[in-house]
Amino acid sequence: MGYGEIDQKAINTIRLLAVDATFNSNSGHPGAPMGMAPVAHVLFNKFMKFNPKNPKWLNRDRFVLSNGHGCMLQYALLHLFGYDVTMDDLKAFRSVDSKTPGHPEAHDTPGIEVTTGPLGQGVCNAVGLAMAQAHTAATFNKSGLDIVDNYTYCFLGDGCLMEGISSEASSLAGHLQLGNLICIYDDNHISIDGDTNCAFTEDVVKRYEAYGWHVVSVNDGDNDLAAIEAAIQKCKQVKDKPSMIKLKTTIGFGSLQQGTHGVHGSPLKADDIKQVKQKWGFNPDKSFEVPKEVYDMYGKHSSEGAAAEEKWNQLLSKYAQQYPKEHADLQRRLKGELPQGWEKSLPVYTPADSAVATRKLSETVLGKIESAIPELFGGSADLTGSNLTRWKSAVDFQPKATGLGDYAGRYVRYGVREHAMGAIMNGLAAYGTILPYGGTFLNFVSYAAGAVRLSALSQVRVLWVATHDSIGLGEDGPTHQPIETLAHFRALPNCMVWRPADGNETSAAYYVALTSKNTPSILALSRQNLPQLEGSTIEKAMKGGYVLHEVQGANVTLVSTGSEVSICVDAAKYLKEKHSIKARIVSMPCFEVFDTQSKDYRLSVLPDGIPSLSVEVMSTMGWERYTHEQFGINRFGASGAYKDVYKKFEFTPEGISKRAVATVDFWKSVPNIRSPVNRAFQQLI
Amino acid sequence: MGYGEIDQKAINTIRLLAVDATFNSNSGHPGAPMGMAPVAHVLFNKFMKFNPKNPKWLNRDRFVLSNGHGCMLQYALLHLFGYDVTMDDLKAFRSVDSKTPGHPEAHDTPGIEVTTGPLGQGVCNAVGLAMAQAHTAATFNKSGLDIVDNYTYCFLGDGCLMEGISSEASSLAGHLQLGNLICIYDDNHISIDGDTNCAFTEDVVKRYEAYGWHVVSVNDGDNDLAAIEAAIQKCKQVKDKPSMIKLKTTIGFGSLQQGTHGVHGSPLKADDIKQVKQKWGFNPDKSFEVPKEVYDMYGKHSSEGAAAEEKWNQLLSKYAQQYPKEHADLQRRLKGELPQGWEKSLPVYTPADSAVATRKLSETVLGKIESAIPELFGGSADLTGSNLTRWKSAVDFQPKATGLGDYAGRYVRYGVREHAMGAIMNGLAAYGTILPYGGTFLNFVSYAAGAVRLSALSQVRVLWVATHDSIGLGEDGPTHQPIETLAHFRALPNCMVWRPADGNETSAAYYVALTSKNTPSILALSRQNLPQLEGSTIEKAMKGGYVLHEVQGANVTLVSTGSEVSICVDAAKYLKEKHSIKARIVSMPCFEVFDTQSKDYRLSVLPDGIPSLSVEVMSTMGWERYTHEQFGINRFGASGAYKDVYKKFEFTPEGISKRAVATVDFWKSVPNIRSPVNRAFQQLI
Repeated sequence: MGYGEIDQKAINTIRLLAVDATFNSNSGHPGAPMGMAPVAHVLFNKFMKFNPKNPKWLNRDRFVLSNGHGCMLQYALLHLFGYDVTMDDLKAFRSVDSKTPGHPEAHDTPGIEVTTGPLGQGVCNAVGLAMAQAHTAATFNKSGLDIVDNYTYCFLGDGCLMEGISSEASSLAGHLQLGNLICIYDDNHISIDGDTNCAFTEDVVKRYEAYGWHVVSVNDGDNDLAAIEAAIQKCKQVKDKPSMIKLKTTIGFGSLQQGTHGVHGSPLKADDIKQVKQKWGFNPDKSFEVPKEVYDMYGKHSSEGAAAEEKWNQLLSKYAQQYPKEHADLQRRLKGELPQGWEKSLPVYTPADSAVATRKLSETVLGKIESAIPELFGGSADLTGSNLTRWKSAVDFQPKATGLGDYAGRYVRYGVREHAMGAIMNGLAAYGTILPYGGTFLNFVSYAAGAVRLSALSQVRVLWVATHDSIGLGEDGPTHQPIETLAHFRALPNCMVWRPADGNETSAAYYVALTSKNTPSILALSRQNLPQLEGSTIEKAMKGGYVLHEVQGANVTLVSTGSEVSICVDAAKYLKEKHSIKARIVSMPCFEVFDTQSKDYRLSVLPDGIPSLSVEVMSTMGWERYTHEQFGINRFGASGAYKDVYKKFEFTPEGISKRAVATVDFWKSVPNIRSPVNRAFQQLI
Repeated sequence: MGYGEIDQKAINTIRLLAVDATFNSNSGHPGAPMGMAPVAHVLFNKFMKFNPKNPKWLNRDRFVLSNGHGCMLQYALLHLFGYDVTMDDLKAFRSVDSKTPGHPEAHDTPGIEVTTGPLGQGVCNAVGLAMAQAHTAATFNKSGLDIVDNYTYCFLGDGCLMEGISSEASSLAGHLQLGNLICIYDDNHISIDGDTNCAFTEDVVKRYEAYGWHVVSVNDGDNDLAAIEAAIQKCKQVKDKPSMIKLKTTIGFGSLQQGTHGVHGSPLKADDIKQVKQKWGFNPDKSFEVPKEVYDMYGKHSSEGAAAEEKWNQLLSKYAQQYPKEHADLQRRLKGELPQGWEKSLPVYTPADSAVATRKLSETVLGKIESAIPELFGGSADLTGSNLTRWKSAVDFQPKATGLGDYAGRYVRYGVREHAMGAIMNGLAAYGTILPYGGTFLNFVSYAAGAVRLSALSQVRVLWVATHDSIGLGEDGPTHQPIETLAHFRALPNCMVWRPADGNETSAAYYVALTSKNTPSILALSRQNLPQLEGSTIEKAMKGGYVLHEVQGANVTLVSTGSEVSICVDAAKYLKEKHSIKARIVSMPCFEVFDTQSKDYRLSVLPDGIPSLSVEVMSTMGWERYTHEQFGINRFGASGAYKDVYKKFEFTPEGISKRAVATVDFWKSVPNIRSPVNRAFQQLI
């Protein structure tokens, strides 16, 4: 305790950096940084353990700015504490290719743990980070050797609390009794539409108590630093509940417009800036001013952080001596590399093996690889028995008090909370020791679209086990049958969408997904049984697309994915018998991976001189990139036994053949048919 | 009160219809219907006001089954009360093209108000239905002539409560003090993963009290019909809060597996069915049995409903006499038709008019048409000042007690709750008297993907005013810049995506969106100013795609949307000057509408014999359907001033020209270039 002038000066320095940077870029949100500077000062300087010289130190405390639009607060802190964020970086706020984009991006800026801005995501990431800490501690800590004991702190605003995703994660965090998670709610009563009275009048304290959280209120977050410190201290002492501090602040504190939404999303006016600086004893004619004593104070804290890491390194050395195997495992995980030889566990199939649903084949993969890859940490949004995401011997990740598992458990019961699951997985992946996967129906990955987008943008390895991937789910009907879903996620940059056709392709999908350190994957898996294909291998499927069945002098290429590939095999026979048409067959389990192959390879799969027809029981959108003609479903599905639904939409050997014949006829007159692989120019990627 | 043997018989009849239908189709969810049959019986037979012979009677009570997987409950009730759902329909449960699909679909089955199944949606639809009632009552009711006073009832389960969307809508419903909404939570302690103890241990009562709801608990929902009735009665008396009844039930009541998740999603075994029927005095060898006295009892209630409608019709006649204008307005609204001549209010522009952002042009449209179309009922997810969705004189839809508006107000402050906004709009549209629109950033329509999908599937007219539609939003950066979003919603069946390029196209987008009774629309609108184009007209743009700029002997067609069209105009000049290349320009504001034009028309826009290049600052996915080459952004965007970002990605006259030249060169060698409009066969739609 004991706060003085220097603390106030530091707080005002943070505020003014936000004021100057937003003014300088003529864009951004000064209000939240000005309101939250006091709590940021107390939290970062009194509580948080970090070393700016090594932002990736495993046992650092994690900080998440869920109200990411207030990022100048975070950038200012990173700069002042000595991270690799220079004053020039602050001056380049919100300019192209800077380290200081409009919202915090984890892969761009040292010290940013997760990418935030889309509201509600950050607090869920924080839940994931806290779960990861609890799991890593339970897995690695030994008596007297607590190598992982960090906290996760999260700032969030009204917007985050209004978004449903935060409700999902908060309910789960309460259930999981995450005592290592401390959230600070910036209760400034202002959102973009004005006073929160117009839309948000619920009792937040009571709601979070209902979730099983420990909740404290601080009434003067603008000035009462001691109360802020006491509140955080109290939260740290509550070990069996996540904590929420409801902190009353004044948005844009110091501005003439403080307490109004006028200061939320626009820079302060020049006059206003002048009066603030004068009021606080700063030179009104200077910008981006940092008093030396502020640098010194924060530098001192950072040095203490560096010393703490040094001490921790000694602890880790001791750990390495006593537990060399665990230590090696931890080091390997932190590099994002899988154990040598793990891939030998991947199952291989021959056409003699029986027909199995790819969701079931996925279960087999998980069962075979889980012991080889101990960082695999899975779950399902209440569809465990349908997604088949839980290997037999799995222990649930649960607080011991529930009697249902413990924190060393590797299987999460997410509840019916797809969006939170996605964002929590982003947090789990960001922690550094965990490789998360989560199950739901493919159609409901769309509920999590906001989180999947951030997986892709922040380049984290997360796997979606997305079963019931088409009209092939049958009776549940159009409300559950994806049509647009694959097109949606195929259009998302840096996201792999896999739709394997059999066991070997399922193994290939897992192989590429698990070894792609910086890319999330969605594995679209069938409910219905699929035969093991003649001609499929893991190696071929790893290329994203390959020739399953080659024919000399073929008249048409059938290109397909997942459950339709085997129907194409039958269609090829039918075409030969009934129409004397020779069809070659290409299986294309992953567009994105196929796109990364050499042009020669792609042309060998989709050659010039022959028309092609895609076959997939979904929207045809996107297939025009690979094929001349498309057979798909550009309407909603139907409820019924899956074979009846396939028949209704003519996804039968006959229905495919009919369209293959039309394709051959239509392209007959065109000389030198060009493969769609040939393009006039390279796309910007 | 006073329940007897006949009530129990009716309840067991409902249960057994669900048992028989799921067994018969070998698919479905008997558990919830068996558990909720008692409350359904009490609610439908004692409280609900409806006439099965006229399922669209305006003043009927609305019922929503948010736990839509329990739809056999609803189908059984519809059948027993005499809706046009026959015993054969029940026998066809979950078979192709039946009236009884796997989850309830509003457009398929008389008596189904909204399409449910995707969890959490229904309860939000119910909030929308309740808001619509409150608004319609405030707008039309006159002293002594309460022509609209219905209630909205909603059943929901644990899954609905876990989904964040329900939290969003529930918080808003509490704020809005919707006393006409009564929800009944099926507290059966079972979800697919087993006991809810594994993931859902929050205090639901406390949470809903925190939202400002009136909450009642009933401890024996299996047997205590009087307590159920008393609870509903009590809720009806609370006029200033929505109500929640927490009803303890036993899932699969009567089955040998009752109370376990074994009875949630699979039919009962034959033996089990036998014992249930015997226990309840039904013939164990018969299926689909309905005692005559059950038909009689429910038929009597339906007759009373028909009489109530008759009485209401008299009231309406009186209303028509005293308030002919209001009456005519109401009748018109119920037909879904807009007032004659409303379209004359749509603004028209010439190239002399100044450059304006399409979000601002949208604001102008709303301001001009709002008085002509009184059923327009808008809002924004806390981005009013950015989306520009509120006309100046608008009154907020708020409870009077807040002092911020009243229920006759037509502008909703949704808060930062995009997903709930989408689902609430579905409920608003389903009520019959309202035409809803809602604003957010285009990127965050993805948060509402689950609700948008159901707008499309259930064929309701809902408008999304989706501003900040591209990298053109500038500084907010990649977290806010849509890349995959248009591809996603263009791939969604029965959903129009509009991206107008100027004022006339914005008017056209509104015209088509507002007059498409059975299709939702997303209007993607720019943050930045766009010039009024030479060659654009409302009539042309209404075709979805048209030739903006024709050139004799053109070498290439540039096809573009929104903010890129005017850059293409500049590119065409540049191409002519620097490369002597003649470029014609096509503006394509809406794929879906263009697709419905005649082939002749489409070929006139995208003719044979000339290569084409699409230009849009998003994923190129989908453009291959219309153009030979595509210029887009298949990566994430960048944070910076919008002009800098456009430059970075080369969306400048020079950048476009470079690719147009490459396109012309690449296609030079191909004789008789075929337009992509030419296809080998018709898609299934």
